[in-house]
Amino acid sequence: MRIELLCTGDEILTGKTVNTNYSHMARRLGEAGLTVSWGTTVGDNRDQLLSAFHQASGRADAVIVNGGLGPTVDDLSQEVAAVAAGVELELNEGWLERIQHYYTRRGRLMPPTNQKQAMLPQGAVVIDNPVGTACGFYMTINGACFFFTPGVPREMKRMIDEQVIPKLLEMCGSKVLTRLKRFHTFGIGESRADLILAGIEDIGPGGSVKLGFQSHYPQLETKLAVQATSVEDLRRKLAPVEDAVRQRLGNFIIAEDDQTLEGRVLDALRKARGTLSTIEMFTGGSITARLLHAESGGDIVKLGVASRDLTQLVDAAGPGTQYTGTGVSCATAVALANSLRGRTGSTHALVVMVSLDADRETESGGDIHIGMANGAASIARHARMLGSRTWIRLGAIEMGLDCLRRQLYGLPVEQRIDFEVH
Amino acid sequence: MRIELLCTGDEILTGKTVNTNYSHMARRLGEAGLTVSWGTTVGDNRDQLLSAFHQASGRADAVIVNGGLGPTVDDLSQEVAAVAAGVELELNEGWLERIQHYYTRRGRLMPPTNQKQAMLPQGAVVIDNPVGTACGFYMTINGACFFFTPGVPREMKRMIDEQVIPKLLEMCGSKVLTRLKRFHTFGIGESRADLILAGIEDIGPGGSVKLGFQSHYPQLETKLAVQATSVEDLRRKLAPVEDAVRQRLGNFIIAEDDQTLEGRVLDALRKARGTLSTIEMFTGGSITARLLHAESGGDIVKLGVASRDLTQLVDAAGPGTQYTGTGVSCATAVALANSLRGRTGSTHALVVMVSLDADRETESGGDIHIGMANGAASIARHARMLGSRTWIRLGAIEMGLDCLRRQLYGLPVEQRIDFEVH
Repeated sequence: MRIELLCTGDEILTGKTVNTNYSHMARRLGEAGLTVSWGTTVGDNRDQLLSAFHQASGRADAVIVNGGLGPTVDDLSQEVAAVAAGVELELNEGWLERIQHYYTRRGRLMPPTNQKQAMLPQGAVVIDNPVGTACGFYMTINGACFFFTPGVPREMKRMIDEQVIPKLLEMCGSKVLTRLKRFHTFGIGESRADLILAGIEDIGPGGSVKLGFQSHYPQLETKLAVQATSVEDLRRKLAPVEDAVRQRLGNFIIAEDDQTLEGRVLDALRKARGTLSTIEMFTGGSITARLLHAESGGDIVKLGVASRDLTQLVDAAGPGTQYTGTGVSCATAVALANSLRGRTGSTHALVVMVSLDADRETESGGDIHIGMANGAASIARHARMLGSRTWIRLGAIEMGLDCLRRQLYGLPVEQRIDFEVH
Repeated sequence: MRIELLCTGDEILTGKTVNTNYSHMARRLGEAGLTVSWGTTVGDNRDQLLSAFHQASGRADAVIVNGGLGPTVDDLSQEVAAVAAGVELELNEGWLERIQHYYTRRGRLMPPTNQKQAMLPQGAVVIDNPVGTACGFYMTINGACFFFTPGVPREMKRMIDEQVIPKLLEMCGSKVLTRLKRFHTFGIGESRADLILAGIEDIGPGGSVKLGFQSHYPQLETKLAVQATSVEDLRRKLAPVEDAVRQRLGNFIIAEDDQTLEGRVLDALRKARGTLSTIEMFTGGSITARLLHAESGGDIVKLGVASRDLTQLVDAAGPGTQYTGTGVSCATAVALANSLRGRTGSTHALVVMVSLDADRETESGGDIHIGMANGAASIARHARMLGSRTWIRLGAIEMGLDCLRRQLYGLPVEQRIDFEVH
């Protein structure tokens, strides 16, 4: 079934409001196994709405219209729906009573303008709105089924989940299950991942699994979308492809599905009854912030220190720091990690430092020096990156967390990533 | 001029990614006096793209296509643009060199798949992309001018501002000057700002200045959009309204235009030849991160410390801390600020601590305790807020920076904000 989402309203069209209603509706439909094939945005304008209704009815079996059901003059959905279907508007007595009741319960009189919300095109079927005065409805326009939903998010959300999706599933009489399996990696660019995973879709029976990528530096998301007729069928189709992806991306997989890199680091520390302290130079305390903002991070992170001033960091790491005056280096990072661990009583310490090239150009380079200590071992990792200061900073934050993940999960800390240069 | 925005990509179509690119583009165009009349969203699908290109060319004079310029197989914009215009794809040697150079500088070989990014429809004119390998371009399809822009936000943003908008303004031959004056406030909600600024548009000659708001908690942006025929005309129209806004929003204005709150704090510290150290409990080091990531923040911030563990914070603040064992309170925050200042040799110290209500419900409350020291004075500020943990955290981060701004600029630190409760 081809489904179109048609969002209306000047606020959305002009970008004043970010269209989160669209993404919510599309995601919920997708999770129910329904596929959105087209999205349209128009303003509060009769001609555009009418044109959009006609075009949507020509290319979709079902159209979900969002917005334009309110009481004010710029709410045009019912009026234009009637024109598009060639019918009149008529008062829905039942809904008028609902609105009046809504106001009576709040000890107020219904403003006369609200009667407009009970005017529906002839032949329209009411979709209940338990949390507001806008009346949802559905009707046929040029052979396509149009669902009209309110623009107020909480009203729209309930209507989509409780009424629109069940009706759509009933319409297509399908029992299709869908699943989106996601892998998050750090260290592989999108084009190399594409090469590494070439032909992976062929492993799934009958091309039933579709591969996709989403790059949000410094992470890359690799996605497997699969449709099936039963849970067993889903498992059978997905499992071989999933295993192959896991094998090919290997150590670069930092998390899967809803997991996060910082969440996996905290998981491993929790299991080991460990605690962590950090020192950050140039990453501004962002590693600590990621960990502290995560679930129960506050119980595991003992102390986070950030500064660009090495003297301050040496002082903060504690009196025992065996700092040999070599400036920012891996040796210094390891020395700081060891003394910080002792001072704070943490089982683990992570130190991330960056020295930028002296020229300070917009597009420049920098050296990342990472030091880790866990009592049993001291580990260092160096990497050189090119790019803007922000690019290098984001890379250093992710690399610091990733080195810790690798150490905690017994993986090699030293494994070349795509973002570093020799 | 009728402008259509055509967003492509399965992530956008399926709602996995919220379409902030759309709202950014539409808003920027609106601020330049250009009006978006239609929005379309389609997936990575040849037939749909072609159909969308044809329809858009029929109803718009200019179409901005976003996404689909990447190196992978699901990036289809150039290919479909060529089909829609009835021309061939040809290699753009200049852009190929750009991509190769991009990789060479990073000590890597260009993956062969990236050559695809230099294949442009015949007759297309390159739009420069100074920050990525995707090549923007514009060309005519069925009489409409199509601009192709990358889906990566930072690449799209520069291209829209620096190239697409000037070209569109040139196309409509308008010599209209536009200006968007922006005020950033902390502590005023949108509905109260609307009341405070009621009637402000009438101050501008002939209603030439338009007022708008954009709320991104905890900040509110108040915008004055003005169109004029000359610089002098612009100044004449804007100045009286600008002055009135500045007077009415008063101390709540934390920054104007491209300034940031952290930038203004650093400005004041720099002028006073001051330095700063911070301690954060519950805000996870985010205040330090904001300051350290800002221009020259690294020279002014001596040390930032974050932890949820009061013992660690007392230890980090230095041996002289006069901590009286009262737990998290304003008195403790001030004591920590004073000893941290001494220990680090900073001229200023800021301590922000939050104690959450014990029940830890999703929708709960918390107390924000702020302490500041500058040698001459110790200042405390307490505020109680209701809301989710994230809501309180974001409020505490902003309030900490804002208290410091108020102290540094000689404004009252104690001034009730809309987000706090008694």
